[in-house]
Amino acid sequence: MNRSRPARAGTQTDGVVQAIRARLASRALTAGDRLPSIRSFASSMGVSPSTVVEAYDRLAAEGAIRARRGSGFYVAATIVPAASTNDEARRHEQAVDPFWVSRQSLDADPATLKPGCGWLPPEWMPGDALRRAMRAVARADDAGLVEYGATRGSLALRRLLAARCAEDDVDVAVDQILLTASGTHASDLICRLLLRPGDTVLVDDPCYFNFRALLRTHQVRVASVRYTPTGPDVAQFEAVLAAERPRLYLTNSALHNPTGATLSAQTAHRVLNLAAAHDVVVIEDDIFADFEPEPSPRLAALDGLDRVIRVGSFSKTLSASVRCGYIAARADRIEQLVDLQVATNFGGPSPLATALIAHVLAGGSYRKHIETVRRRLARARRDAAGALQRVGVEPWLMPRGGFYLWCRLPEGADSADVARAALKRNVVLAPGNVFSASQSAAAFMRFNVAQCVDPQVMRVLEATIA
Amino acid sequence: MNRSRPARAGTQTDGVVQAIRARLASRALTAGDRLPSIRSFASSMGVSPSTVVEAYDRLAAEGAIRARRGSGFYVAATIVPAASTNDEARRHEQAVDPFWVSRQSLDADPATLKPGCGWLPPEWMPGDALRRAMRAVARADDAGLVEYGATRGSLALRRLLAARCAEDDVDVAVDQILLTASGTHASDLICRLLLRPGDTVLVDDPCYFNFRALLRTHQVRVASVRYTPTGPDVAQFEAVLAAERPRLYLTNSALHNPTGATLSAQTAHRVLNLAAAHDVVVIEDDIFADFEPEPSPRLAALDGLDRVIRVGSFSKTLSASVRCGYIAARADRIEQLVDLQVATNFGGPSPLATALIAHVLAGGSYRKHIETVRRRLARARRDAAGALQRVGVEPWLMPRGGFYLWCRLPEGADSADVARAALKRNVVLAPGNVFSASQSAAAFMRFNVAQCVDPQVMRVLEATIA
Repeated sequence: MNRSRPARAGTQTDGVVQAIRARLASRALTAGDRLPSIRSFASSMGVSPSTVVEAYDRLAAEGAIRARRGSGFYVAATIVPAASTNDEARRHEQAVDPFWVSRQSLDADPATLKPGCGWLPPEWMPGDALRRAMRAVARADDAGLVEYGATRGSLALRRLLAARCAEDDVDVAVDQILLTASGTHASDLICRLLLRPGDTVLVDDPCYFNFRALLRTHQVRVASVRYTPTGPDVAQFEAVLAAERPRLYLTNSALHNPTGATLSAQTAHRVLNLAAAHDVVVIEDDIFADFEPEPSPRLAALDGLDRVIRVGSFSKTLSASVRCGYIAARADRIEQLVDLQVATNFGGPSPLATALIAHVLAGGSYRKHIETVRRRLARARRDAAGALQRVGVEPWLMPRGGFYLWCRLPEGADSADVARAALKRNVVLAPGNVFSASQSAAAFMRFNVAQCVDPQVMRVLEATIA
Repeated sequence: MNRSRPARAGTQTDGVVQAIRARLASRALTAGDRLPSIRSFASSMGVSPSTVVEAYDRLAAEGAIRARRGSGFYVAATIVPAASTNDEARRHEQAVDPFWVSRQSLDADPATLKPGCGWLPPEWMPGDALRRAMRAVARADDAGLVEYGATRGSLALRRLLAARCAEDDVDVAVDQILLTASGTHASDLICRLLLRPGDTVLVDDPCYFNFRALLRTHQVRVASVRYTPTGPDVAQFEAVLAAERPRLYLTNSALHNPTGATLSAQTAHRVLNLAAAHDVVVIEDDIFADFEPEPSPRLAALDGLDRVIRVGSFSKTLSASVRCGYIAARADRIEQLVDLQVATNFGGPSPLATALIAHVLAGGSYRKHIETVRRRLARARRDAAGALQRVGVEPWLMPRGGFYLWCRLPEGADSADVARAALKRNVVLAPGNVFSASQSAAAFMRFNVAQCVDPQVMRVLEATIA
């Protein structure tokens, strides 16, 4: 490769770009005007036609000019801002519904503090391991960079996942694993396979707010069961199965979102027996499993992946940008899910993304990273719990791991009011009722301890509770 | 960074890995056995405990051993192959339905020839531009590598897309663009927003086979309209709208898949008026637009993105691995689609993927790449048409661009039979009826001219037609 060429061509291209920008600034060229032809401008600037093409392309990419194939380049009209900032849109964005936390935290500007969000700050994530993986994968052959990949997704990553499932006593063949675009996408595909509008689905109360948003799109009825520090309330679970006949139970094991509670072995066993007696399929979302200090009971392990479907991803521990989720399930279900994913997404997740994740997992540095994060979270959890208690906010329990604290606000405080007031001060909180199908958690709030480090969080919380 | 450290640690780790592999090979350690403790093995090998941890992690990643957190490492049981190779699964995989081409070509082994598939060979794609983009993006800060990104997706890429839409006379604000995981995912999200089970959707006959697969998952009725060399048959289009009352018309403009036909300005105008008169929403899938030698009429441009929703992606021209699709639509529809994508995929496409695509598009090399591909395709189209005619296979028309030739087989040949026979000889074909809602295309077949270069394709075709 000739390294000097791009630099020299770049300088000439810059010159042409600047010449056009000067004419736009002086309004020698205005909206709708045709730019000089490639050939004549190249000749007048003393550069090659391809340099002018590159300069025009760059200006077109910026939106300053537009190309009409076959007819040349024109100065672009000024683009009108979108209508999404009108009052109705703003009201919609600020409704305290299951979308509240996603809307406020995904599109937050960098100055916003996000103790309500569901991820670690970027500096907690293994950025350097990903950079190493990118350099390694960039050296691979074209196929992994440009082709669709297999319908189940990367075999290398499925092998790694099968080994990791085995660590949790979930024995699964590589063909029983389907890679998906994300953990949420995994649950969505399963819901599409198993649910019809009007079916009933059982969730925990409280549960991950996006389960509620997801089920709303499936137009199903939602029933809920009270979550205790050792899992769902078994007596209520049985009563709801009998009364509501849900088709599906959608739950988190390991570290429950939002409570941080851990399923006990006895509860797991009884839940599974009841699910079998009432023919309920279980989706066990294990997305927080890697944050556990030691393994806890798993429905998928007890059941042997018969009626339990395991879902996971690396968005919380490795990268939410390089996203990939997975489904581990009975072989016949995976066959159907493969077709469903082809029909709705033409294939699985990006082979590039799965190659990057496999590279990080296989390198051995992932486990060290997780251990570091676990230690750091233990400290942050203690600190956040102390700080919250000082402003009258009480953890419901102290979780064994993960980054959530489910807390009760002081007597009389409504968490939706507090969240709305805090948003005006650029703090995104997660009010209790977004997690509650029965809307019985107005006094609660979920905190992400890794996002509570800035003292401004507690200052705003104290001010908005008062 | 100390570059020598990883290498030396690597060598020691390799030594430990080999020591364990030797014990597994000699069956000194067998399935279920506990491996030596980290501390004792480190001491006996004269290495640090972290080196042993790394070696064990690597063996666990390969599936040779498994970790149980808190209790050490064990030799893994042999993993049983999945049940998906049984007879029933094979019959399912070989059914000539809308999934035929996807199933056979996505999971094909590298030796299989794929004249039926819908993408260019990897060596036609801009692998080097992607590698440059990967190196550039790997130098960026952590946020783009590890965070979720905004709900609409990368602003930089949406700006580039707005400029590109403007080139086709489709004026769109950046907030009216939603990035999605793929072009198929874009169409799926729109269908989820607009359709209810039992609705009717109109497609072209023939149409892209995966439109049929997608609509099947939405449990809608499918009506179809005959496609002519200048677009849908307008008289039949009007009759079907009146009789079937479809909610949606799902079509390809630019280079129609599978026929390669081009919508005429007159047909576009009449189709749009009829859609307005019958209140039909139009999804215009523009995925092949960049292959056009010069622009053709666009429904989205005539309509100003009111009832037309534009869908596109770069899977065909840039990379199907680094995938990203987009939707350009009315602002109110985009607001609803944002929520739907959050609920079902928690946010948009990978910020890493969108950064890579934006880098390639903004660099200016993309347009040159496309021009090269267009020229190469023109030659391949001529060559393939000639070779097909020599075995009695006649192109229905010679398209202006793209990589498809829609062809009629010799009298009496059934394309499904030919495709089944060719598959036994490791050639994946695309039989006509997978594209036909009315099942009236048994005499037709779609060929990808870029995948017809190997002379074995025509040999197998000739043998299986006879």
